Amino acid sequence: MVSSLKGSADINSKYLDKYEIVADMGEGYGRYTIAPDNEIMKLIDVANVACGFHGGDYNIMKQMVQTAKKYGVKVGSHPGLPDRMGFGRRKWDIAPEEVYNMVVYQTGALKGFLEVEGMTLHHIKPHGELYFYVERDERIMEAVLTAAKQFGVPVVGAKNDKYQEMAKSMGVDLIQELYVDIDWTVDGKLVPVAQSRPKNPEIIYQTILEAGKTDQVTSNKNEIVKLNFGNNPFLLCLHSDMPTGLENIKAARKAIDELNRDN
Amino acid sequence: MVSSLKGSADINSKYLDKYEIVADMGEGYGRYTIAPDNEIMKLIDVANVACGFHGGDYNIMKQMVQTAKKYGVKVGSHPGLPDRMGFGRRKWDIAPEEVYNMVVYQTGALKGFLEVEGMTLHHIKPHGELYFYVERDERIMEAVLTAAKQFGVPVVGAKNDKYQEMAKSMGVDLIQELYVDIDWTVDGKLVPVAQSRPKNPEIIYQTILEAGKTDQVTSNKNEIVKLNFGNNPFLLCLHSDMPTGLENIKAARKAIDELNRDN
Amino acid sequence: MVSSLKGSADINSKYLDKYEIVADMGEGYGRYTIAPDNEIMKLIDVANVACGFHGGDYNIMKQMVQTAKKYGVKVGSHPGLPDRMGFGRRKWDIAPEEVYNMVVYQTGALKGFLEVEGMTLHHIKPHGELYFYVERDERIMEAVLTAAKQFGVPVVGAKNDKYQEMAKSMGVDLIQELYVDIDWTVDGKLVPVAQSRPKNPEIIYQTILEAGKTDQVTSNKNEIVKLNFGNNPFLLCLHSDMPTGLENIKAARKAIDELNRDN
Amino acid sequence: MVSSLKGSADINSKYLDKYEIVADMGEGYGRYTIAPDNEIMKLIDVANVACGFHGGDYNIMKQMVQTAKKYGVKVGSHPGLPDRMGFGRRKWDIAPEEVYNMVVYQTGALKGFLEVEGMTLHHIKPHGELYFYVERDERIMEAVLTAAKQFGVPVVGAKNDKYQEMAKSMGVDLIQELYVDIDWTVDGKLVPVAQSRPKNPEIIYQTILEAGKTDQVTSNKNEIVKLNFGNNPFLLCLHSDMPTGLENIKAARKAIDELNRDN
Repeated sequence: MVSSLKGSADINSKYLDKYEIVADMGEGYGRYTIAPDNEIMKLIDVANVACGFHGGDYNIMKQMVQTAKKYGVKVGSHPGLPDRMGFGRRKWDIAPEEVYNMVVYQTGALKGFLEVEGMTLHHIKPHGELYFYVERDERIMEAVLTAAKQFGVPVVGAKNDKYQEMAKSMGVDLIQELYVDIDWTVDGKLVPVAQSRPKNPEIIYQTILEAGKTDQVTSNKNEIVKLNFGNNPFLLCLHSDMPTGLENIKAARKAIDELNRDN
Repeated sequence: MVSSLKGSADINSKYLDKYEIVADMGEGYGRYTIAPDNEIMKLIDVANVACGFHGGDYNIMKQMVQTAKKYGVKVGSHPGLPDRMGFGRRKWDIAPEEVYNMVVYQTGALKGFLEVEGMTLHHIKPHGELYFYVERDERIMEAVLTAAKQFGVPVVGAKNDKYQEMAKSMGVDLIQELYVDIDWTVDGKLVPVAQSRPKNPEIIYQTILEAGKTDQVTSNKNEIVKLNFGNNPFLLCLHSDMPTGLENIKAARKAIDELNRDN
Repeated sequence: MVSSLKGSADINSKYLDKYEIVADMGEGYGRYTIAPDNEIMKLIDVANVACGFHGGDYNIMKQMVQTAKKYGVKVGSHPGLPDRMGFGRRKWDIAPEEVYNMVVYQTGALKGFLEVEGMTLHHIKPHGELYFYVERDERIMEAVLTAAKQFGVPVVGAKNDKYQEMAKSMGVDLIQELYVDIDWTVDGKLVPVAQSRPKNPEIIYQTILEAGKTDQVTSNKNEIVKLNFGNNPFLLCLHSDMPTGLENIKAARKAIDELNRDN
Repeated sequence: MVSSLKGSADINSKYLDKYEIVADMGEGYGRYTIAPDNEIMKLIDVANVACGFHGGDYNIMKQMVQTAKKYGVKVGSHPGLPDRMGFGRRKWDIAPEEVYNMVVYQTGALKGFLEVEGMTLHHIKPHGELYFYVERDERIMEAVLTAAKQFGVPVVGAKNDKYQEMAKSMGVDLIQELYVDIDWTVDGKLVPVAQSRPKNPEIIYQTILEAGKTDQVTSNKNEIVKLNFGNNPFLLCLHSDMPTGLENIKAARKAIDELNRDN
């Protein structure tokens, strides 16, 4: 079976002039760490910085923003559900107004750190369960898109047709990203980390090259998913908190650099 | 004994064109409330909005900012120590860098809500123990003033000579406020709520008129404290969470309106 | 229509020798208060003490346990979901093992305060959404009943057939309580506070007398719900945090005392 | 210079029949981990289990208690200040009544997990800043000792004369522990982790043998500190969260086993 994702991938060209790598950053807390953030920052182009709800805190945010500045990395907000113990991955019934408010709060807090460093907000990328909640519930989708519209930034999201339509109708750009370290379903939805098959650096390297050259990936049921990026670059998203997180990102950097060289 | 406070009260004229009232707002949490915020908002000119650390949360902040907009009330951030259980009133040893970061985080979060409502940040006013910490420790003073400088807003503070000097040297405006519902020491420091003698609406009304007409107040030891506002208006600060909070503010509104009429 | 609830109401006689009143107590936090706990403690027979997750904290728990001791009030634990901002009333997908762990943690913490005061734990009564979650999901039901069995105490719950069967099969006593300040559905489920019709002290007084004398109440659709308490006393549960909370409890005390006098 | 610590080290013989190793366990949070707890549990005799304030949560506590049961490890409570972000290591002004309450809450919560597993509480050992606060402030010392007395368990502490006197006068046993992975001052106080010189497994191994055979250690200023354990065994305490934590504990196990063999 072959499925084909619709979507305005040409929006990507507005925000990316080449294939770029994004990673979730600053998701530790106090003296707890999740990933070698300082090492990863040198390898990526864009950072989704956690805002203190599912992960991160004001000290870590400050450090992430300053490190991003040092390495020329663009910074987006990475708001999550207010569930630090569950790392923002537990399902929760939250009113859309409340989701809107928590996205404004977290994004505002990050903009505070960007402002004092003379930087600007690049995008909003919902975290974990909030990411899936947005895809699942149109009222949540609208809440997040409304916040993005008011902050004047695009949202980073997967290829979900309804999502793209709503974003378009609201005048919010939806940057197409590509995940290669978790599974896809044939209809273009991402499989949560816990249910995905594990990926090693070699798989990641090959999947990126395949996606860049053939414009398709393979689903968790071995079906072909046409990506329809066309000639537009994608934003490759990697989880920094996987067991082989740093190695995955190094392998991805190599693949992305090769794609950019060949383009 | 008579003491006399130095200070550049003419800064007040830059931000206030008349005597104005400010109150701490939005200090509830979830379904907990502290003060009748919606009633108070109609009676004040300026609001210090809690930012979710010592009090407040993202839903309350949203509501406060919208209510302030409705009544034409100016909004400043009211950052506190991250101590919700202690309402930001417990003493804590915190590194200056961390204080700076928490002020940036909280003020940024509030700016998020102001931005989506098309409003601007008016000032920063530290809450509770952070307020006293700023007066007591020059490194904390510098941390808060640095954040204010970077956000381009004044700080609201009491008359403390060193504080005023540092603010001046850093190019940060320090708005002179006046407290009449807690005690003053003869050297111009505020006495924490728990140690102050209780004040009723009538005392508050009379103290405001005295301050406005004679430019002085009486200390907790019955000494005269010269305020040295001269011809400059002051920003009257009232606690909204006192037992007679709403009545205090109504009495203050009456006194302030009288002073403004007579000026 | 008339519905009739099954259930082993004779268990009540094991724990109550007369009609008794229970209320949720100690649900404030830090300097936030929800109800006049000290006034209410004088009017009730049994207290469900919040354990610091949805409400309450270690200082409040200590005070509640000491006040209960003073007035001879029996104390049960009132564990809730770890959601202080939502007062434990938001729906959340939580694994049964985690629910079991949070009930053990909270009940253990309360037992700590009881132990140092020389008191014993009377029962466990889940709070808010956890209460409804138990009724809705058999795995959650089993988790809570398992904790109760291990602590050797009964669970306080509404009349739900499956709940009663499981409790019986596990050897856990399920005390039948009666709510009169929120609505019942005809099949014996409680309607969440927000969806219930408001009740004033007079309605509460009359409903209690009706329940005690006729062994039935009226559902939210005006159907008759047979309670089947028979000659067994019930445990009347009142919300202390309603607008007329204290007055409701006073009215209930009067009705309960009349029922006990007439029995 | 040589200093000599007083103290009733014979109390140790009441609780230890040989040299034993204790470590702080379960100090992660949600998906954050601090130390390889499951590996360490196999190497120790006694565990101080974090209770959800400075570290740990109800899921981790459950797992720690079950793992301790599996390996025959004795379990004490490890209460900390309610400061997860600062890992319970920030200085804070807390009223003694509040410290008492937080120790009762945390210890009660742990006893809950011990009760459902059929285990008993072995001791109380304050964590981090609370540990130092107890040594520094006699009102805090009394608060913690009172809780221990009411729970009927000893407190684990360093050699501090006033501490020992108060414990003795209150009838609370104070188990003498020995730290070898942080520094001692000549007067028998422990130096906080951040100010201590780093220790590797070899230093730890040698220090333990020295302490066991000569009854003395060397202070941070190279002075001799007489331990005065006499013929009584000590409880060796190791930080599980140091960079070489697991290796330190393996080295310590070897040294302790040698001391026990030679005794």
